[in-house]
Amino acid sequence: MARTPPLSAIAINCSLKKSSDEKSSTDVMIGVLQEQFASFDVPVTETIRIADFNVLPGVTSDEGEGDDWPAIREKILAHDILIFGGPVWMGQLGSIGKRVLERMDAFLGETDDCGRMPSFGKVAVAAVVGNEDGAHWLSAQLYQSLSDTGWTIPPAAVSYWVGEAMGSTDFKDLDKTPEKVVETAKMAASNAAHLAGLLKSETYPGAGG
Amino acid sequence: MARTPPLSAIAINCSLKKSSDEKSSTDVMIGVLQEQFASFDVPVTETIRIADFNVLPGVTSDEGEGDDWPAIREKILAHDILIFGGPVWMGQLGSIGKRVLERMDAFLGETDDCGRMPSFGKVAVAAVVGNEDGAHWLSAQLYQSLSDTGWTIPPAAVSYWVGEAMGSTDFKDLDKTPEKVVETAKMAASNAAHLAGLLKSETYPGAGG
Amino acid sequence: MARTPPLSAIAINCSLKKSSDEKSSTDVMIGVLQEQFASFDVPVTETIRIADFNVLPGVTSDEGEGDDWPAIREKILAHDILIFGGPVWMGQLGSIGKRVLERMDAFLGETDDCGRMPSFGKVAVAAVVGNEDGAHWLSAQLYQSLSDTGWTIPPAAVSYWVGEAMGSTDFKDLDKTPEKVVETAKMAASNAAHLAGLLKSETYPGAGG
Amino acid sequence: MARTPPLSAIAINCSLKKSSDEKSSTDVMIGVLQEQFASFDVPVTETIRIADFNVLPGVTSDEGEGDDWPAIREKILAHDILIFGGPVWMGQLGSIGKRVLERMDAFLGETDDCGRMPSFGKVAVAAVVGNEDGAHWLSAQLYQSLSDTGWTIPPAAVSYWVGEAMGSTDFKDLDKTPEKVVETAKMAASNAAHLAGLLKSETYPGAGG
Repeated sequence: MARTPPLSAIAINCSLKKSSDEKSSTDVMIGVLQEQFASFDVPVTETIRIADFNVLPGVTSDEGEGDDWPAIREKILAHDILIFGGPVWMGQLGSIGKRVLERMDAFLGETDDCGRMPSFGKVAVAAVVGNEDGAHWLSAQLYQSLSDTGWTIPPAAVSYWVGEAMGSTDFKDLDKTPEKVVETAKMAASNAAHLAGLLKSETYPGAGG
Repeated sequence: MARTPPLSAIAINCSLKKSSDEKSSTDVMIGVLQEQFASFDVPVTETIRIADFNVLPGVTSDEGEGDDWPAIREKILAHDILIFGGPVWMGQLGSIGKRVLERMDAFLGETDDCGRMPSFGKVAVAAVVGNEDGAHWLSAQLYQSLSDTGWTIPPAAVSYWVGEAMGSTDFKDLDKTPEKVVETAKMAASNAAHLAGLLKSETYPGAGG
Repeated sequence: MARTPPLSAIAINCSLKKSSDEKSSTDVMIGVLQEQFASFDVPVTETIRIADFNVLPGVTSDEGEGDDWPAIREKILAHDILIFGGPVWMGQLGSIGKRVLERMDAFLGETDDCGRMPSFGKVAVAAVVGNEDGAHWLSAQLYQSLSDTGWTIPPAAVSYWVGEAMGSTDFKDLDKTPEKVVETAKMAASNAAHLAGLLKSETYPGAGG
Repeated sequence: MARTPPLSAIAINCSLKKSSDEKSSTDVMIGVLQEQFASFDVPVTETIRIADFNVLPGVTSDEGEGDDWPAIREKILAHDILIFGGPVWMGQLGSIGKRVLERMDAFLGETDDCGRMPSFGKVAVAAVVGNEDGAHWLSAQLYQSLSDTGWTIPPAAVSYWVGEAMGSTDFKDLDKTPEKVVETAKMAASNAAHLAGLLKSETYPGAGG
């Protein structure tokens, strides 16, 4: 099948730090995926650093004055593929990533006549980094929240790196991206691009109506 | 797109009990999904009660003499959709479900020339029951393990029921399947059938070679 | 052993809502525990609603201007027992609770000459509510983070209530606190009070020096 | 306080492999803890390799003919401290460790007149190894299940090692135990020994009666 409509991806970086701070390992991993997506003709048009914005706590799509989520939400939903960049903290997804997932909880109440959430037909992959341990748990948290809120999860959907236990090396400080990380990113990008193409051509019919 | 090749699904029931024991709530939930899959022309051809077999511990596809996994593995991979029926124990996936996931770990080493695991192009959904609490954590464990081992996870991929905290009601003892459970099962079946159809017509190209 | 030094507890409510909003189910559960702690002569001196404050993201004990964490941290550490009140969102700990845990990550670097974090000798219990499912996963997230950051976890350390799957009842709307919830809270309070008494009389010797 | 009654610990190794197979990394980590416990005068009297026995699935303390759990259960409960040795599989606790936890679920129904489970007053720590990622999630699964079933969890209760992401080094193959692993084990042993001593002198009063 020709992937007729062109695809695009957007990334969010859920680092605890603003972009004015030091270089982010999560950004580096998003970059690894970006290069692979490019090879499948899918541009990653933007990376949104969530910590630069004021995403208010809550589970609606607009928590009122000062809430930056509505604009971010609109951007995310304007793309076919979401790269969810989540650093590990204490072996788990950090609070800023958790905040984003909570805001997507609103999708459950925003279904169309066929019961489809706004995220239906869109594909999510994860870019996960930490200095030690936590990538699998973080993936599990993401996949459950993302499937619950309407995203489709391809096989081998996470591009990750964490160091040895109790280590302190950051991904951004590696001399070179490990070959296995590149291979994993390539597979995640290939799977996501293929799946998003299929779903863009023919989205879920839903179950309501 | 015409879903040209017909689809079929298989269910596994990871109850701690053998099928000779009392009726299984997991079976009841699988039945709810089965009815919905039938409405989308996808027969659930069989439910394998894992506890009836001797699935040996390990992470290869054949752990030798007395291991019933090779035959179960073959059956699972002969279908397009897997319904993973997992009862909750202590708020988590039970040990028999965990055993099945471990055996699928072998898929990571069984890739073809394009780097594709035997599960690539296949879709998994979950049927989860417990007398109280645990469905989301169990889903998270499943989705992570299943995506890691090559399965595709549709949106809203779990059909679940658990009772009130510290309760003791079993799903099989409800007078009537709650309407929300039926709706959720319908959506999971619709999404899985659509996705499996797309992928059967055009599977992942992989990333190796 | 006489529990010679009197004990006190403090509660944090990690609801996504400020205290000016509607009544909080988490507060109601904290109240259930408070009553039980009182019966063991342990006053719960205060409940801090985290959402009323500006707890900045980060993993140090002071993230600079506008950060309300240093004052909250000081209050928490002035007590023997912490009641961690965490509502469930999407089956997981909410982002505000996650934020608090991240800030406690700093304890790992604030050890004394014997390698003891500031939380050593202190006991934590959980007060968990949700309208459906998630109490066990939330407990797991809490216990791992809290043990990692120096807290001691008693047996049966969570007082929880969640409703039936896909339900919408809130704990605060129940006509009456279920008897099992009260019993569970009584046991959690008894265990925490006993343990905190033992540890206050004779704290961990540590392992450094 | 004099730790008057002498303490003892027992370890379980929940490897997927029998002891007749190759050397176990989990055993090596248990050995690291054992040495530290010895320095606090707590002998680790035995390591039970669960895979050598037939622990039947179920949630009672005796699942009938051929069930080796009753004897293992008795041994575990004859000690003051449990070292739960759990290898990581797919980023999670393996199925054999999960099986052990399920069997402890029976403790919830085996309370005395004061509502105390047979594990009350006993302390658990974890020995976790994997070739990459998963120690924190595994700890979380353990702590939740162990606290729920009556064990007390000290601060910094896990002695763990996992390698770099997508790595294949096993703990048993390291030239030398990393210093940080030894330090972590020392702290876990110190905390567990102190806590078990306090609780053996004066156990939980419970809440029933």
